[in-house]
Amino acid sequence: MQEIGVGVIGTAFMGKAHSLAYAAAGTAFGGGLRPRLEMVCDIDPDIAKAKQIEMGFARSTTNYMDVVNDPKVQLISICVPNSVHKEIAVAALKAGKHVWCEKPMATTVPEAEEMLAAANESNCQTMLGYNYTQNPLVQSARDLVNEGVIGEVTGFHGIYDVDNEADPDRPHSWRMSREASGTGANADVMCHLVSMAHFMTGAEVTRLVGDYDTVYKERKDPNNPEQMLPVDNDDVCTALAHFSSGIKGTLRVSRVAWGRKCGLRWEIHGSQGMICHDQERLNELQLYKRSDDPRQQGFRTIHSGQYHEPYSAFLPNAGHTLGFIDVKVCELHKLLTAISENTPAWPSFEDGLKIEKVMDAIDRSAMSGAWTDV
Amino acid sequence: MQEIGVGVIGTAFMGKAHSLAYAAAGTAFGGGLRPRLEMVCDIDPDIAKAKQIEMGFARSTTNYMDVVNDPKVQLISICVPNSVHKEIAVAALKAGKHVWCEKPMATTVPEAEEMLAAANESNCQTMLGYNYTQNPLVQSARDLVNEGVIGEVTGFHGIYDVDNEADPDRPHSWRMSREASGTGANADVMCHLVSMAHFMTGAEVTRLVGDYDTVYKERKDPNNPEQMLPVDNDDVCTALAHFSSGIKGTLRVSRVAWGRKCGLRWEIHGSQGMICHDQERLNELQLYKRSDDPRQQGFRTIHSGQYHEPYSAFLPNAGHTLGFIDVKVCELHKLLTAISENTPAWPSFEDGLKIEKVMDAIDRSAMSGAWTDV
Amino acid sequence: MQEIGVGVIGTAFMGKAHSLAYAAAGTAFGGGLRPRLEMVCDIDPDIAKAKQIEMGFARSTTNYMDVVNDPKVQLISICVPNSVHKEIAVAALKAGKHVWCEKPMATTVPEAEEMLAAANESNCQTMLGYNYTQNPLVQSARDLVNEGVIGEVTGFHGIYDVDNEADPDRPHSWRMSREASGTGANADVMCHLVSMAHFMTGAEVTRLVGDYDTVYKERKDPNNPEQMLPVDNDDVCTALAHFSSGIKGTLRVSRVAWGRKCGLRWEIHGSQGMICHDQERLNELQLYKRSDDPRQQGFRTIHSGQYHEPYSAFLPNAGHTLGFIDVKVCELHKLLTAISENTPAWPSFEDGLKIEKVMDAIDRSAMSGAWTDV
Amino acid sequence: MQEIGVGVIGTAFMGKAHSLAYAAAGTAFGGGLRPRLEMVCDIDPDIAKAKQIEMGFARSTTNYMDVVNDPKVQLISICVPNSVHKEIAVAALKAGKHVWCEKPMATTVPEAEEMLAAANESNCQTMLGYNYTQNPLVQSARDLVNEGVIGEVTGFHGIYDVDNEADPDRPHSWRMSREASGTGANADVMCHLVSMAHFMTGAEVTRLVGDYDTVYKERKDPNNPEQMLPVDNDDVCTALAHFSSGIKGTLRVSRVAWGRKCGLRWEIHGSQGMICHDQERLNELQLYKRSDDPRQQGFRTIHSGQYHEPYSAFLPNAGHTLGFIDVKVCELHKLLTAISENTPAWPSFEDGLKIEKVMDAIDRSAMSGAWTDV
Repeated sequence: MQEIGVGVIGTAFMGKAHSLAYAAAGTAFGGGLRPRLEMVCDIDPDIAKAKQIEMGFARSTTNYMDVVNDPKVQLISICVPNSVHKEIAVAALKAGKHVWCEKPMATTVPEAEEMLAAANESNCQTMLGYNYTQNPLVQSARDLVNEGVIGEVTGFHGIYDVDNEADPDRPHSWRMSREASGTGANADVMCHLVSMAHFMTGAEVTRLVGDYDTVYKERKDPNNPEQMLPVDNDDVCTALAHFSSGIKGTLRVSRVAWGRKCGLRWEIHGSQGMICHDQERLNELQLYKRSDDPRQQGFRTIHSGQYHEPYSAFLPNAGHTLGFIDVKVCELHKLLTAISENTPAWPSFEDGLKIEKVMDAIDRSAMSGAWTDV
Repeated sequence: MQEIGVGVIGTAFMGKAHSLAYAAAGTAFGGGLRPRLEMVCDIDPDIAKAKQIEMGFARSTTNYMDVVNDPKVQLISICVPNSVHKEIAVAALKAGKHVWCEKPMATTVPEAEEMLAAANESNCQTMLGYNYTQNPLVQSARDLVNEGVIGEVTGFHGIYDVDNEADPDRPHSWRMSREASGTGANADVMCHLVSMAHFMTGAEVTRLVGDYDTVYKERKDPNNPEQMLPVDNDDVCTALAHFSSGIKGTLRVSRVAWGRKCGLRWEIHGSQGMICHDQERLNELQLYKRSDDPRQQGFRTIHSGQYHEPYSAFLPNAGHTLGFIDVKVCELHKLLTAISENTPAWPSFEDGLKIEKVMDAIDRSAMSGAWTDV
Repeated sequence: MQEIGVGVIGTAFMGKAHSLAYAAAGTAFGGGLRPRLEMVCDIDPDIAKAKQIEMGFARSTTNYMDVVNDPKVQLISICVPNSVHKEIAVAALKAGKHVWCEKPMATTVPEAEEMLAAANESNCQTMLGYNYTQNPLVQSARDLVNEGVIGEVTGFHGIYDVDNEADPDRPHSWRMSREASGTGANADVMCHLVSMAHFMTGAEVTRLVGDYDTVYKERKDPNNPEQMLPVDNDDVCTALAHFSSGIKGTLRVSRVAWGRKCGLRWEIHGSQGMICHDQERLNELQLYKRSDDPRQQGFRTIHSGQYHEPYSAFLPNAGHTLGFIDVKVCELHKLLTAISENTPAWPSFEDGLKIEKVMDAIDRSAMSGAWTDV
Repeated sequence: MQEIGVGVIGTAFMGKAHSLAYAAAGTAFGGGLRPRLEMVCDIDPDIAKAKQIEMGFARSTTNYMDVVNDPKVQLISICVPNSVHKEIAVAALKAGKHVWCEKPMATTVPEAEEMLAAANESNCQTMLGYNYTQNPLVQSARDLVNEGVIGEVTGFHGIYDVDNEADPDRPHSWRMSREASGTGANADVMCHLVSMAHFMTGAEVTRLVGDYDTVYKERKDPNNPEQMLPVDNDDVCTALAHFSSGIKGTLRVSRVAWGRKCGLRWEIHGSQGMICHDQERLNELQLYKRSDDPRQQGFRTIHSGQYHEPYSAFLPNAGHTLGFIDVKVCELHKLLTAISENTPAWPSFEDGLKIEKVMDAIDRSAMSGAWTDV
């Protein structure tokens, strides 16, 4: 079992999730590369030091270039705000480091293109953290589709609703400003849904018409609750979409949908059946097959288990259930395998750029009101 | 308890459903008008006679004008193909008969306008069979929305998927021809969804962009299975919609969605909660209230019961469950009350015309590719 | 189509349900006997007269013997308190009338035996209103079991929880007195569960150990809320059971289980699969087959539909859903067929007596603490 | 942040789960003791060495006494077959090591008593791996019960069905022999259910009547498939139970229930509501409160989230879902806190012995057929 030195930049939720994945990968998967926790970076020196100890890293820093340039580090996690993804990713790739970057890839298409160019010029592997596609059960669903279990794919429909910003009394933040953060639900939430649409269909959205809704048009100024500040990006983002494979579909997301905690629900329609999934029940897949005896036809609730690998890296039998962190370990395992085998894994920066372009086309269409090519 | 003489034109599924409703109304509701089954009409004389006996009508006929002109008949059910709704409805209204007409209202907007004109010139009540809105639990959901239980309404999203035509080997029929039947899923399925959108929001769709997909572009000729005939109307119909109240939403329907039997699922989003319903579980409502203690927040699965009137016209306690036919009896009860009180009930022909115009706008938008006013 | 004259004794919930079934049977089923509503009986003359008109009966009476002796009546519904089932049933059978009697059969085993003796001496058909077994989907489940879809039956486990008496502030009533009403949840609720156990297994409970719990040991005197009256029968009734077929199982019921409205949930375990049902979702059956591909194994949620006859007596396609009243019509249809064909239908008085004996054995075991033969 | 040296004995599923928990604890919880992976033990030297590397331990051994006696080890995980729990636990406690022991505690009550005696004589903390009780959502459920959210507790009913041995063609193993493994489903499965019953009620089972069923009375000899070997322990184990708090309940488990993967489902009934949980959906809790507006009453599906601590040790928002391994980390965190604070955490060996005694009483009752005191 070989080791690989890893560095993590950013220590909030995603930095923590990456660190947990690095700590678990060897034990869970046994074979392959075993991460060795070299350096963690946070701009706050106290946090950097505390996280080094808690998370078990050898060293810490406040300067991401220390991670980029560290000779013991071969793989770098980018877990910082989207606006700095590009500069870190490009630096890391130029320094010959593999990159595991959180989603979305960047804040603009040109940035994402620059990231892809850097990847193409390197000999490194890249992976974007579109975690929901890495669920063993979702991967197995893709296999079932490819094997023709639901016949020809005839449509893809997806929803991703969350209630992060659903409270009308929640104060204004940078997330509600187009200047500060770009689009709203489109960037934050739609990217996950597009990644799932691309993954499950094996095709890409090529043409669409999109719409925005800013449900709460102003929010309290956090510094002066007497005053309201305008919200100028989207709380809700919807699109009708055409895919490269000839199928059509719909995409809709909201950041103001009360009760939906991680409500990524999608359906892939086929000529002989249907498969559905709801991220809030990530261990369950719904499968309908019209070939079943008519008296016995119904959606099957399939529990993730040892037949949906790499489930058994964690648990021996179905029903024990994987969680978000476990799926992050699966994602990492794919990247480590890509590094070992020097073969890209989905979704690399190349795949990520395609996703970015869809969000960009939705934005253009929502502004123009016209059907728009991606 | 007063009686009202009724006539039913058409004896297929909907003729049967109306007859069952007429037979149950007196017993279920006790008060109000009691239907007296006067005459049934079917173009096939043997069927007409057989149904007269089975369904308990006093007389039968093969000529719908016999029903229209019968002096003992005050209320007429129109349960025949959509293309003849107009001529029968206009005749019945001119003869001073109240009309209970199945959905959709007509095959074109001008026809529907003619029907509304006839209704406006009469002193009669009209009702369209948008049955799913008449479910006591759905009516109660509307009350909850009106009472502000989910705060301000911020969005409406609906899906209606069925698998009636999902089998690619199902032969061609008049339903698959734009000339013979007009639009496909738009006319057949979308009308229900639009009725629900209008009912639940208390608003109307005013502007939209729509899209069609013909998933199976040809079907076997039923008379010559060696030959394929083109399908030139929509299997799938989708739209992004703006409402008169300022909210936005999405609508999508399919007649080729395997596993969905009566998959009318809708969500009404609010600033303080959400309500959802799935017609396949018509006795259950989902309600989320953000005002609940955070540790105890979750969608409540509310069973229809005596607190959702007129449930107790049928059953004393929750959990015993109403079925489709019972809801049809509720619909009839509303019409009978409208007749007694000489006050229109929703959805009258006036409400129906608004629904027709939405389907028409979707059709125009799907053809032009442009955002379109209703 | 032949007619049969019917009389209904009792006009509360069950009288209404029987009347609705009689009014619907001809239209729903077409063939077979068509009920003709002859006479309704209620001890209150005003109610009797009002119900005659509302329900559409030809005549009414306050004396059940008028129904029993009426020459135009061939079939009598007994929808009165359990304590008078026996005297009416015996009189009706002696008068040569077929009997449709609500559940439970009687208040004691000797009474039930007397009823069976009267049935055996007559040429009449009898049926008990164990309605939940008559659901087309449940009947289809029984067919699947008989066809071996789940292999050999290995166990039956059932629960029937309701919350009728769950409120501790609900005042005392005759239902809470062993002297006035016999056992509590055992008589009222367990009878349904035992009927389902017998129906689904095709076997009978032969030996058991039972237990009672009186959760609320005293209740407010309804006439004097300052005073408490003792409750001396069971709120909860549980049993471990052995069946005539050699399998074992469990039975538990409660009348004080908050949130369960009609919570009759059962599972039949097999060597190759499992079938489950929940009465609150009466249109859904759960089926697990271990013969499915391991990656695709899961409980199927089967919606009742045209493949589960006599569903199509009401509705053409799955998903439209039957309600409690429709299932009552199915029950009636079975009885009318039994009468036409002069062949008993399940559950006749013979089947009902077997159910009564199980409740009696539970009662004896709960008192003695010992395993007890039925 | 202080460190604690840990050793793991056994490297199969549970050894792996403990190792994953040790690797994650520091990162997840930040504060408290940080495990330092000192030594892993497996009787197979190749496995021991391989696991040392994969799992990141400093050293490995084939002799568990090396772990027991290692001065750098303060906490020992016992993840070996039940029959050797006692000897290792006693040795470890005598050596002054804290013990984290998998369930069930032992194979006989006297063994468990010996283990408790050793714990009592030590200054060490003990914890048993009754993992399902450590789910943050289940712990929160217990808080809700304690706060009176469902009023007075009136009953506890639990089921734990799995399909590990459901295949009739599965060959005989030591698990099917009373001599080799003691009771069957009673030992393996019932122990989890009893732990949950004790945890959720805060009371203990004191009296019961139990029953066994050996569904497959013989199994193929794995060494000679032509020959059958007898199964002489229980596939199914059921009990009616009385609790120390005065409530009653039911317990049933099966190892031959097709389709149930980890089907631990329980209900706690209260005078003002009900709480239910299903381990296969470990991130969802069902809560019914009769104090809700009657039109809005229904079971709430509560998703685990930041309001159910220590959820936020892993994830920032509800909906992302914890898995089995995460809950194991929660369990470990409780033990580490107990060690830090020198205060026992539930379930210690003292609590575990009470659980063992219930299984023992079920066994005695199943043999004698009599109600039996624990």
